[in-house]
Amino acid sequence: MTARLDAQFAFLNEADRLKSVLRATTLVDGSRPENSGEHSWHLALYALVLADQAEPGVDINRVVRMLLIHDLVEIDVGDVPIHSANGQAHASVETQAAEAKAADRIFGILPQDLRDILRALWEEFEAAETPDARFAKSLDRVQPVMANLMSGGGTWTTYNVTFDQLEARVGVKIAKGTPRLWDWVKAKARPWFG
Amino acid sequence: MTARLDAQFAFLNEADRLKSVLRATTLVDGSRPENSGEHSWHLALYALVLADQAEPGVDINRVVRMLLIHDLVEIDVGDVPIHSANGQAHASVETQAAEAKAADRIFGILPQDLRDILRALWEEFEAAETPDARFAKSLDRVQPVMANLMSGGGTWTTYNVTFDQLEARVGVKIAKGTPRLWDWVKAKARPWFG
Repeated sequence: MTARLDAQFAFLNEADRLKSVLRATTLVDGSRPENSGEHSWHLALYALVLADQAEPGVDINRVVRMLLIHDLVEIDVGDVPIHSANGQAHASVETQAAEAKAADRIFGILPQDLRDILRALWEEFEAAETPDARFAKSLDRVQPVMANLMSGGGTWTTYNVTFDQLEARVGVKIAKGTPRLWDWVKAKARPWFG
Repeated sequence: MTARLDAQFAFLNEADRLKSVLRATTLVDGSRPENSGEHSWHLALYALVLADQAEPGVDINRVVRMLLIHDLVEIDVGDVPIHSANGQAHASVETQAAEAKAADRIFGILPQDLRDILRALWEEFEAAETPDARFAKSLDRVQPVMANLMSGGGTWTTYNVTFDQLEARVGVKIAKGTPRLWDWVKAKARPWFG
């Protein structure tokens, strides 16, 4: 029992470092960059509040769990902004390999049963094939759009993003998980691009 | 549909402000104060990882939901450190009234169905009477103990806390939700107090 709790808390203490991983996106008030810990909280809250936008059959509790752990690999790899490297950075073989290695190390701190469960959940999120993972991915794409809109441009300004690029890099993925939500977000975002 | 989504996103944008509410506790590495948004994420992760410490019948999905929303009232009221005002601050009538008013305003931004659900969940957490709420409260007390231990003292130093005070203010509440977990935490914390 004690060895198990030691491993559980070693993981929880290590996870704390996600609060020091900075994203390209700022807070809604533009005051500072958002970190990946608070981003993960905000996304889980998105899932609770926007559950009625999910396709039939989506299990919101699983979506919340995915969102709580989806960025843990960034403790080793850092955040890869979606609009960086002309929108291609996250798809690179190097990034994928580094994230898999990070998952080995970080989930590997846990007792084996928990390691297997959370690792599988992270892989499901990354693959974005199940309805739960597609909805989780959609929310992960919607939240920075809102932060950019509220803060006056954000990463769209930083990376000179066009509306067509937003639609290709972000809109397509949002629509995959929750088509009606992209219609609403698009209507809000379109005017910003002039 | 559009009016509903407008209200849902108005709430999610307002919730972003929780990332700017600072707590007395620091990050595990002691580098800066923790904010209540990332704290809420960390607690939800605690619930996933420490689910096997909950009493039989506890619904971890409900615990996670409670923890995601439990601090939203701090957007208006701020964080009330557990060891401040000689350990009495949070029990004051003034604090309770201010938090209820904050809940009216913040949950009131939501469409009525979601407002009622999340408000009831927050009240259940605050009352700390159901098994789900007691477990959620326990985790909310455990996490700062770990942060203090990892960062070399933290709020125990700030507020000159004794081990007896820790046991009375924190230990009793942890043990109420998860007795075995307090035994483990106590064994880790005791030596710090000399």
